[in-house]
Amino acid sequence: MKTLAAQVITPEDLLIHWQGHRKLTRNLIEKFPEKDFFEFSIGGMRTFAQLTDELLAIAAPALKGIVNKEIKPYTEASEKLIFKAQYLEKWDEATAEINEYWKQLSIEDFSETFNLFGQYEFPIIQNVLYFIDNEVHHRGQGYVYLRALNIEPPFFWER
Amino acid sequence: MKTLAAQVITPEDLLIHWQGHRKLTRNLIEKFPEKDFFEFSIGGMRTFAQLTDELLAIAAPALKGIVNKEIKPYTEASEKLIFKAQYLEKWDEATAEINEYWKQLSIEDFSETFNLFGQYEFPIIQNVLYFIDNEVHHRGQGYVYLRALNIEPPFFWER
Repeated sequence: MKTLAAQVITPEDLLIHWQGHRKLTRNLIEKFPEKDFFEFSIGGMRTFAQLTDELLAIAAPALKGIVNKEIKPYTEASEKLIFKAQYLEKWDEATAEINEYWKQLSIEDFSETFNLFGQYEFPIIQNVLYFIDNEVHHRGQGYVYLRALNIEPPFFWER
Repeated sequence: MKTLAAQVITPEDLLIHWQGHRKLTRNLIEKFPEKDFFEFSIGGMRTFAQLTDELLAIAAPALKGIVNKEIKPYTEASEKLIFKAQYLEKWDEATAEINEYWKQLSIEDFSETFNLFGQYEFPIIQNVLYFIDNEVHHRGQGYVYLRALNIEPPFFWER
């Protein structure tokens, strides 16, 4: 993909930005003690494992839907993961899938609308920004869980 | 500012995106009981008032620095705010300032580097994405504070 005109952000840099965030979230998953990843929460919120289920159900599947123009409802994986190592494996699979699907997006595609999960009809750029923001949002919650567990979270700048 | 070539995201849409997040953060500040805004925290973290001090010290001052090419160290306001209403007033002032400064950025500017606070030398687009991500990150923490206080936070989609 060749960028000819000046861009606010290029597709290449937006992918690096997204994957940088995903790397930080992966580090956060690693910091959780096995038990707390699946059991700890505050104020009736989801555990970080459950939040990660959501993140995994969005990123690669949503981008796949966009690229293939296939509208599928939001669904979390039916396979129940019971170890953190399984989550990290799924995370890495998604990282590679995202890199592959991303190559199929042209600059023009970002302003096309896509009905994400059959529910959110917005330009693709807004869908992508949502994937990132939603992850940063939930990861911020994970930072509080770690602090409450007296564990030093990774530096926000570390990507 | 006229966009001639296809853009992944236009400056206009990136501003709307940023201000949409700022609107949601403003809603979050409003949801906090006066006392808890200044006193509640989890795991030794900053209160939401202190986190808001940081957000206010970044957004408009940082964008002003970028536009005026003035490198100033990061500093939080010396004036101590003691009411939530004062924070909301500062928030709205920053909203208007951001809109004004934003008009002075051209598409070409976003790929220029700027040494933010004399510490973070990155392309301007990365500085701007940092302002947004950092706010989403801390606001996600505010969501946990509200949940821990048994208060329903605003819907993440509401901007």
